[in-house]
Amino acid sequence: MADKKWKTAISTHVNHEPYVRGYRLLDLVGNLTFSEAIYLLLKGELPSEAEAKMMDAIFVSVIEHSIAPPSVIATRAVISGGNSLNVGVGAGVLAFGSAHGGALEDAMKFMQEGVKSNRPVEEIVKEYLSQKKPIPGYGHRYYKEFDPRTKRLFELAEKYGFCKEHCEFAKKVEEEIYKQKGKRIVLNVDGAIAAITSDMGFDWRLGKGFFIIGRVPGLVAHAYEELTQEKPFSKRLSEEEYEYTGVEPRELPPERKKV
Amino acid sequence: MADKKWKTAISTHVNHEPYVRGYRLLDLVGNLTFSEAIYLLLKGELPSEAEAKMMDAIFVSVIEHSIAPPSVIATRAVISGGNSLNVGVGAGVLAFGSAHGGALEDAMKFMQEGVKSNRPVEEIVKEYLSQKKPIPGYGHRYYKEFDPRTKRLFELAEKYGFCKEHCEFAKKVEEEIYKQKGKRIVLNVDGAIAAITSDMGFDWRLGKGFFIIGRVPGLVAHAYEELTQEKPFSKRLSEEEYEYTGVEPRELPPERKKV
Amino acid sequence: MADKKWKTAISTHVNHEPYVRGYRLLDLVGNLTFSEAIYLLLKGELPSEAEAKMMDAIFVSVIEHSIAPPSVIATRAVISGGNSLNVGVGAGVLAFGSAHGGALEDAMKFMQEGVKSNRPVEEIVKEYLSQKKPIPGYGHRYYKEFDPRTKRLFELAEKYGFCKEHCEFAKKVEEEIYKQKGKRIVLNVDGAIAAITSDMGFDWRLGKGFFIIGRVPGLVAHAYEELTQEKPFSKRLSEEEYEYTGVEPRELPPERKKV
Amino acid sequence: MADKKWKTAISTHVNHEPYVRGYRLLDLVGNLTFSEAIYLLLKGELPSEAEAKMMDAIFVSVIEHSIAPPSVIATRAVISGGNSLNVGVGAGVLAFGSAHGGALEDAMKFMQEGVKSNRPVEEIVKEYLSQKKPIPGYGHRYYKEFDPRTKRLFELAEKYGFCKEHCEFAKKVEEEIYKQKGKRIVLNVDGAIAAITSDMGFDWRLGKGFFIIGRVPGLVAHAYEELTQEKPFSKRLSEEEYEYTGVEPRELPPERKKV
Repeated sequence: MADKKWKTAISTHVNHEPYVRGYRLLDLVGNLTFSEAIYLLLKGELPSEAEAKMMDAIFVSVIEHSIAPPSVIATRAVISGGNSLNVGVGAGVLAFGSAHGGALEDAMKFMQEGVKSNRPVEEIVKEYLSQKKPIPGYGHRYYKEFDPRTKRLFELAEKYGFCKEHCEFAKKVEEEIYKQKGKRIVLNVDGAIAAITSDMGFDWRLGKGFFIIGRVPGLVAHAYEELTQEKPFSKRLSEEEYEYTGVEPRELPPERKKV
Repeated sequence: MADKKWKTAISTHVNHEPYVRGYRLLDLVGNLTFSEAIYLLLKGELPSEAEAKMMDAIFVSVIEHSIAPPSVIATRAVISGGNSLNVGVGAGVLAFGSAHGGALEDAMKFMQEGVKSNRPVEEIVKEYLSQKKPIPGYGHRYYKEFDPRTKRLFELAEKYGFCKEHCEFAKKVEEEIYKQKGKRIVLNVDGAIAAITSDMGFDWRLGKGFFIIGRVPGLVAHAYEELTQEKPFSKRLSEEEYEYTGVEPRELPPERKKV
Repeated sequence: MADKKWKTAISTHVNHEPYVRGYRLLDLVGNLTFSEAIYLLLKGELPSEAEAKMMDAIFVSVIEHSIAPPSVIATRAVISGGNSLNVGVGAGVLAFGSAHGGALEDAMKFMQEGVKSNRPVEEIVKEYLSQKKPIPGYGHRYYKEFDPRTKRLFELAEKYGFCKEHCEFAKKVEEEIYKQKGKRIVLNVDGAIAAITSDMGFDWRLGKGFFIIGRVPGLVAHAYEELTQEKPFSKRLSEEEYEYTGVEPRELPPERKKV
Repeated sequence: MADKKWKTAISTHVNHEPYVRGYRLLDLVGNLTFSEAIYLLLKGELPSEAEAKMMDAIFVSVIEHSIAPPSVIATRAVISGGNSLNVGVGAGVLAFGSAHGGALEDAMKFMQEGVKSNRPVEEIVKEYLSQKKPIPGYGHRYYKEFDPRTKRLFELAEKYGFCKEHCEFAKKVEEEIYKQKGKRIVLNVDGAIAAITSDMGFDWRLGKGFFIIGRVPGLVAHAYEELTQEKPFSKRLSEEEYEYTGVEPRELPPERKKV
């Protein structure tokens, strides 16, 4: 039995009914909010009220970010090819690579390793700055003094009691960058979520999962809008929209012309 | 301006900040639960407390259904090929085709068209039964008297005031099947969610979206478990696990053998 | 043994070596062209030289169609999100829905059913025209007299002996449309491939497969170009590129403001 | 013009007709084999006859590997969920991660960097062996003396004139491992393809592309077989097929029970 190829600790069936982390799924319906059930699923235990509220705030903070990002472009292009809702949403989830949601995972890794290492923050920051490596979770195109989303999430984390060692570490790094560099590189929203979820005890390898769960509703909304409002194949580049940088038209060599 | 190819009513940026359905995203953080924000995103308006609770119950009811379904197999096989979390989850979402979550969409369509048509339920049921077509949202492998999930969801819908024309229609169909067939074909959980979301005013073409949003956390949990607990390429069929039904080994004709 | 869940007639292992349609894979290497091996895989038997050449012509005719189509947009958006080559190509294949490659499948179905039905072409065409339904495989944005790709493929099909009942049917439909409508709606490249592959004996449900196999090299080229020539996250819509059609910025009702 | 976001050197339209790498697509139809057109697409120039034959051999060598691998499992699970051919094939391509086709890319990188570095092979091998790092492209579960596929591909590469510096390097590494370790770790088929494509002048970052293009026909065959031969939702794990390793059934704490 121990060597079955498919193994899981997440859920099982008892008398044909699904049980999630030991609880009968049906007992959860009406008794848990969606965020509470997600927490149970990912963490294995029921959340406290504070944990559930923090989860709500995190998911809401990433739920939708306009039509601009690559994930929405992929979702709508795939729907435009003539596909069902699930195929468009699936394609959008694929776009959540290292450059799109990956910062959250990288920042969690950076903070969890930083805290665990017990190395002085001064030294860690110096290492990154001297190698001109970006520090995951820091920096923003428009916010130069502070990121308002970070401020909001940290206020909530404070209120709910999740500002522990990782949040402290994250803030110290921000200060240390300022000290060493003479200008602020702000802790951004990815960094804030990374610090808080780390203090909530989540493994960094699950990091992108928070982004995926939180953003999928946005992809569903875009897939539905494309499906119901736009004509098929409308997501196509017109000739004015792209630049051709290749070789000029040329003739096939005569010896290749069989027909 | 009116003829831009990319158009959306879902969200936009104002001063570099995302606004969702008119509300500044940051204002929602800490003020809305995840389900409330999903409702706003999909419906365009803030939910009442009852609507938010109903959404919670619906998402929780589909959140995870053990390792068995094709979506989990696809997720874990793709992770097993050596991919990141997002790729596994994306593959799982792809599996939500007409046979896996599609019943919800089909049942919403059936009920919305049924209610709108004003045709007698007797006639509608007769049409399906005489053509031996399955009625979407009805029937279960194990539940022959009633589906306990339907019972629970309907109790909640009753409590929150969502048992309106579609729920009535759904129950009438169940009774009518019993009358015409002499045995029960129960309104299943897909049918129950279909009736309730229809009474909440959602379009059937969004139907699979409820399933996708609700089940993605389950896929994230399975992708994470596969990533952290299993060896790469472990989701591979051994020779004992499959049957070869093709032609016996044969020789390439001599005239084909160049090397 | 007969009830295994995973069954295949395509290939198996003999002494740890793969055998495809009965032939040892290694024996095919150096002895078959790629198109010959594809034919064997899909049809179960080795192709004649004519069949192999026809396959080559078909795959080449769809191999690449510039950066414009939704599949390339999806591929490049997903790569731009920070993903590996396979994830971008996979996303592009997803885009091959009913509006993007689906015409080939639809046209094969139309022709195979048309030929099988023995109905007069006149009647079939009248049915479509009177219902203003587009006939799958007919019509082109720019070509109003004839589609040069159809001409080329039909010349080759003629030469290789594949102009049989389905090609005849396809041409008759084109003539009949002209007769009934007074203007040409040309048999397009999808229609031409559909007629020829039908005459080669392929099932219409495999139709999109020819498009997928033929076009994947194009997607690989685009994924590679994006990966090596462009910056991550560069496939993002700027604010000038999209139009927001939703509600104006508004305030969260005071009773919702908890923080 | 130079700052358009979508740029490509692969193909464009001239008078509404696609041109690939400067050649009118239609001129290629009937004049190039599929492999020749793929080479043109990926490399930018027409292949010699030897190059075209080598491409054929490489694609055929990876075209299908039985129902066993994770990519086929993903393809068939997604089709089983009730999806179209393209969605199943797309999901299969996703599975081609670092553990499934990735060895080819890794081996190309290893060989191209090894040749470029001019370091003694002895030193390179020592570095890997001393760190117990597997050398990409070497090792096989069953072949302990030589890999017959490598033998076949190298014979062809020899014949066609592609055994140059990378093939030499690859063979030297094999010998050097034997010398330092006292036993053979054979150059496997991934390693052989890597050496040959490197000698043909392809960049390692395109490596997985050869595997994807070559294997997609296999995925199409499996998607079609699942679609036409199997019942929807048949790719589902029965309760006997998986092991539940999680917590035992338990009661929801009384204070959580609202309904």
